[in-house]
Amino acid sequence: MAVNRWHCDQAWLGRVAKSVVIEEENGRIVRVTADAPVDPDAMPLAGLTVPGLANAHSHAFHRALRGSAQQGAATFWSWRDEMYRLADRLDPESYFRLARAVYGEMVLAGITAVGEFHYLHHQAGGTPYADPNEMGMALVAAAAEAGIRLTLLDTCYLRAGFDEPPRGTQSRFSDGSVEAWAERVTDLGTHPAVVVGAAVHSVRAVDVDSARVVAGWALASNVPLHFHLSEQPAENEAALAATGMTPTAMLAEAGALGPLSTAVHATHLLPDDIVRLGQSGTTVCFCPTTERELGDGIGPATSLQDAGARLAVGSDGQSVIDILEEARLVELHTLLAHGARGSHSGSDLLSIASGNGMKSLGWRGGKLEVGFQADFTTVGLHSVRTAGIDDPLAAVMFAANQDDVTDVVIGGRHVVQAGRHLLLGDVASQLQAAISGVVG
Amino acid sequence: MAVNRWHCDQAWLGRVAKSVVIEEENGRIVRVTADAPVDPDAMPLAGLTVPGLANAHSHAFHRALRGSAQQGAATFWSWRDEMYRLADRLDPESYFRLARAVYGEMVLAGITAVGEFHYLHHQAGGTPYADPNEMGMALVAAAAEAGIRLTLLDTCYLRAGFDEPPRGTQSRFSDGSVEAWAERVTDLGTHPAVVVGAAVHSVRAVDVDSARVVAGWALASNVPLHFHLSEQPAENEAALAATGMTPTAMLAEAGALGPLSTAVHATHLLPDDIVRLGQSGTTVCFCPTTERELGDGIGPATSLQDAGARLAVGSDGQSVIDILEEARLVELHTLLAHGARGSHSGSDLLSIASGNGMKSLGWRGGKLEVGFQADFTTVGLHSVRTAGIDDPLAAVMFAANQDDVTDVVIGGRHVVQAGRHLLLGDVASQLQAAISGVVG
Repeated sequence: MAVNRWHCDQAWLGRVAKSVVIEEENGRIVRVTADAPVDPDAMPLAGLTVPGLANAHSHAFHRALRGSAQQGAATFWSWRDEMYRLADRLDPESYFRLARAVYGEMVLAGITAVGEFHYLHHQAGGTPYADPNEMGMALVAAAAEAGIRLTLLDTCYLRAGFDEPPRGTQSRFSDGSVEAWAERVTDLGTHPAVVVGAAVHSVRAVDVDSARVVAGWALASNVPLHFHLSEQPAENEAALAATGMTPTAMLAEAGALGPLSTAVHATHLLPDDIVRLGQSGTTVCFCPTTERELGDGIGPATSLQDAGARLAVGSDGQSVIDILEEARLVELHTLLAHGARGSHSGSDLLSIASGNGMKSLGWRGGKLEVGFQADFTTVGLHSVRTAGIDDPLAAVMFAANQDDVTDVVIGGRHVVQAGRHLLLGDVASQLQAAISGVVG
Repeated sequence: MAVNRWHCDQAWLGRVAKSVVIEEENGRIVRVTADAPVDPDAMPLAGLTVPGLANAHSHAFHRALRGSAQQGAATFWSWRDEMYRLADRLDPESYFRLARAVYGEMVLAGITAVGEFHYLHHQAGGTPYADPNEMGMALVAAAAEAGIRLTLLDTCYLRAGFDEPPRGTQSRFSDGSVEAWAERVTDLGTHPAVVVGAAVHSVRAVDVDSARVVAGWALASNVPLHFHLSEQPAENEAALAATGMTPTAMLAEAGALGPLSTAVHATHLLPDDIVRLGQSGTTVCFCPTTERELGDGIGPATSLQDAGARLAVGSDGQSVIDILEEARLVELHTLLAHGARGSHSGSDLLSIASGNGMKSLGWRGGKLEVGFQADFTTVGLHSVRTAGIDDPLAAVMFAANQDDVTDVVIGGRHVVQAGRHLLLGDVASQLQAAISGVVG
């Protein structure tokens, strides 16, 4: 197989290195040479090249809600009603088209791997499709066409709340039993550039015994396990009222915490919860642009990190698709909450935006080093946003946005060049068409 | 004088109107026609055209600090030390070049008027320049070359703190007495496309009696009066300790509150402060991207509005130059603070981003109506950010960023076309050159 090579003006190798040649074979980095002579056979990349970014938490179809739910007073729950009405209208074809365009928007933003927290499994009323995994396979096909790595977090969702069966739209999410979930997900099989993982929707939607089965399945398969955790105070209140335990304690009981696991949001935690998460090696995925949009709050980033947890970030509800922005908001929202200047360096934020998320999603990424996947993202340094900033990594992590991403390579394949998606072409038009097709 | 005309695919006339022709003469709008036939003599503007945006609070030279002060633990006060070191290095020529490039970045973001809170008046040690207003005139020249309306808020700064004379860099800010300040500012005279206004730096930097003189000067001249207010708890503590009054009460005592006045930040307020601001008709200018960057906190937007205050926004320390983003953060930070969904409509946010700021800065803007200044900003609706959002105003106010701004007209002059600054050309390179010239 041919060796591909790129010549980076500057690249992040744990430091800003200049004139870096990266060589790839079979999707992996096979050589990295700093201060290399200009190589006429290498594809030139200006700006700063960093490891590909990881979007650790996504619900692709929520992109159709961007801009729609903001008018007037509303709550997290009225937002959810609108999301359910959208879910009602999706079928495998429209789900595929929407996800493909959204994954295209992600790749343009420098994201090379996405964790899709996928719970829209069945037809209206809960009847499986002829192929029970048709909706999941629609996402697999969408990711393949967009050129992005997909971690398909097949989500188990069994009830509306403690002692409440699924109702309305929720019947599309439920397999009826965890055994049925496990059977269906096992049938997903394996696919190139896809990691099939598992998710427990939340302790509200999945009882502890069923969560234990999901966790066991993920552990036995050695794949990622994700779950929504304590996004809103109401979840904590309901858990305490029903079981006397916090959601974190319930998931610990279910064996769901650990190095393969990721807690999404983790916004409202008790000190014991923080200790449990930190000590178990569970990754914590914040989604700041969604957490502010929905009025969730600011998660305890500093306490979690002090307790030993690694942070990743996700675009979640897609009000913004920009992992650089999500990472810097971990820092900036901590400042808002605590009134002190920050403690995250540019390198810390890059770990949040890349390596920690890659680990969360089961990919060997996050470093431009031999043996790691050949995923890299090049960010231009000469826009009005980044001009005049002396430190290239600071320019990228503190000032650049998704428009500054010029090139993206995924598994050695050049997917975005000069800001254009080579596989999909006009992503904005595809978003327009896909969304128009489903909004009521 | 020639009548200029533009044909807007869509324009905000209190509602989204289609096929709108705007005619201008002598810098003012003379006719607005909705559902107009396509006019071959009119300049076409695709997307949604809104009134020009107002940046109600700016320290242009702080742009040179973007990306530099984030590493490691720091405080508002260590940031301020770095800003002083930068101020030490500026002279009229470098101040002019930096401001010109920064105003260029602002215009590219759709900003047609900026309120420059200007306090860097004198040479090192406090000696006036041969022309004592040389630094202010550098800003006037910079704004003229960038094509932007300038409200020059000449800032009175007399002491380092309660009973503390200016020290170090601060001597460049101080006129020595409020009488000297008034004499110098009166000598500024008038300039086209410039409003000369006044500012009291803060109650820490200006005693009540001097603030009263500044307020009287502004009132007599019928010009805007701005002041920093309660950005950090330390300011409130120092005021209470020294005088028994809050900063708001001190400024009320000085006659500084009123319809010509703008309180900048207003982050940490007591209920009485909020009532005073609301009842006096004072505008309140939030600077959310700076307030989070410096760990100031989230101001009480809802309480202030309920008390009758109008909100405007500003780029302040230039970590971000994007008034659309600042306006939406008023909403989003309120959600973060209060956990409830928002109450600002797209139209509310546009008022914050345009009309309220224009009033704060002394310009007749904020509406695309006959008699108002011919300032308008066109935002594209087909980027990956805005694609698929049905309501154009929601797309602009909730999803677009400064990269989506395609055209900007200021006083009937087309200054930005297809994303390019027609007067300055390559603004990013000018930022790079200007900043490289001053960072140590």
